[in-house]
Amino acid sequence: MSVTVVGSVALDTVETPSGKNIEGLGGAAVYFSLAAANFTQVHLVGVAGDDFPSEHERLLASKGIDLTGLERAPGRTFRWAGKYHEDVNERDTLDTQLNVFESFHPKVPEAARNAEYLFLGNIHPSLQLEVLEQTKHKFVALDTMNLWIDITLDTLTEVLGRVDCLIINDGEAKQLTGEVNLRHAARVIRGMGPHIVVIKKGEHGAMLFDEKDHIFSVPALPLEKVVDPTGAGDSFAGGFMGYIATQDKTDFATLKQAVVHGSACASCTCEAFGPDALVLANMDLIKSRVDDFRKLMAF
Amino acid sequence: MSVTVVGSVALDTVETPSGKNIEGLGGAAVYFSLAAANFTQVHLVGVAGDDFPSEHERLLASKGIDLTGLERAPGRTFRWAGKYHEDVNERDTLDTQLNVFESFHPKVPEAARNAEYLFLGNIHPSLQLEVLEQTKHKFVALDTMNLWIDITLDTLTEVLGRVDCLIINDGEAKQLTGEVNLRHAARVIRGMGPHIVVIKKGEHGAMLFDEKDHIFSVPALPLEKVVDPTGAGDSFAGGFMGYIATQDKTDFATLKQAVVHGSACASCTCEAFGPDALVLANMDLIKSRVDDFRKLMAF
Repeated sequence: MSVTVVGSVALDTVETPSGKNIEGLGGAAVYFSLAAANFTQVHLVGVAGDDFPSEHERLLASKGIDLTGLERAPGRTFRWAGKYHEDVNERDTLDTQLNVFESFHPKVPEAARNAEYLFLGNIHPSLQLEVLEQTKHKFVALDTMNLWIDITLDTLTEVLGRVDCLIINDGEAKQLTGEVNLRHAARVIRGMGPHIVVIKKGEHGAMLFDEKDHIFSVPALPLEKVVDPTGAGDSFAGGFMGYIATQDKTDFATLKQAVVHGSACASCTCEAFGPDALVLANMDLIKSRVDDFRKLMAF
Repeated sequence: MSVTVVGSVALDTVETPSGKNIEGLGGAAVYFSLAAANFTQVHLVGVAGDDFPSEHERLLASKGIDLTGLERAPGRTFRWAGKYHEDVNERDTLDTQLNVFESFHPKVPEAARNAEYLFLGNIHPSLQLEVLEQTKHKFVALDTMNLWIDITLDTLTEVLGRVDCLIINDGEAKQLTGEVNLRHAARVIRGMGPHIVVIKKGEHGAMLFDEKDHIFSVPALPLEKVVDPTGAGDSFAGGFMGYIATQDKTDFATLKQAVVHGSACASCTCEAFGPDALVLANMDLIKSRVDDFRKLMAF
């Protein structure tokens, strides 16, 4: 089964204690696609400006990612700049330039429309709705962020009512629900629509909650060095959705495996700037990381 | 095999979003003993003032805890007061009164001296040294805190050189080593003496590192309600050491089980004020919690 992702395609300038990466390939849809492409056919829906280097497009195509839905618009590509602290779990956003994203309205090509699995990356909830209007998927997962919770909660609530799964950071889960206890937060979110909730906790791993109140908790892989965590969350989502698509089911046992495979992809992303390490990942590496998780957690 | 603990016996005043508990039974040695007593014979070494309610002593004795080493000194019992935030992972210390602890010098009775396992609770490192001078144990674990790292690092370093295991919070591990990466922090700590390092991460669980760079990571049990986390770390240590004492070995497989049993004890402690919930725990409950951890982590 194949997966469609709608989200940002970006040029990121990132500074971490390990160095600086200027205008490198980035964006949620890019990280998601690179991770998910290890598992299955990925259709990317997004927009890039006329300054988007063709080498980036070639890289994505070389991984078998369908770029029919990657619109080329006149103007500059979306840009984000951020700086990570000595403790790389904390970062400051230095700059966000929407550029071509400002007037973007996703047009989902036929192949992408027919994919069984859909991931709505973190974009304006009204754009996420536009995508839902064009498609009819078996299973839809959603990401969002503090900004949309702050400024357009009504539209976000409408989107939440129409998806199967929310993948969200712990801080955002608390903000969205007003609950500091993640178990309660997940329950409140389930009341909003998604019957499955995944809460990402950065260096502390991730938690999965289903509609029967089952809980699965996975730590993050303790890496020798976290070079740049940018895109780790989207890589997680890519591995998560990619795994589900290969299994074509969403029972709790499958979802648990999906969380571990997503975590494996996220761990790869953190080991170099931008998607450099994720690009080098393959199923052998991902499987070996899944084994690492088993060793880390078995008792 | 039996366990000796040296540490504080206290009257705690604690305010959490769930309410307030005024001058309740507390102290590291108390929480440790109550947890460890589920597993094996515990010898408590500490000091209480002449105002220490005899009902507390009776409670500890009723659990089979050997109180021969609990000195009664003229004066007031050690007092601590703290307030937890809405997010109970954060707390402010409002008051600390050393009282009889100020002039305390641990005297370890014969039975306690002969215990195979020793836990040096969080007290001044020079007192921890005094205990080590009086005893010869098979396996010694140590706790400490930011205050001692700040003001008496030399003596703490001397203690570290003489113990097998350090059980420490993530923030303190970072402070002690100057490393933000916990894997590196554990390696630096091992270089200081202890060949086993356990890093407690509160609501994010705990990590275990051994001298062969094996790592085990366990999340915290997602509780419906955290009423009062005071003493959770010491309850963890009690379950950890209690389990090891019953097995009388410290290979990695045993240490992993010990971490899970410690985490089970810690989860009990959080569910009521002071040691109220821990007091009600028994091996059946602890085993059922260990099963909960297995369900939470198995994939």
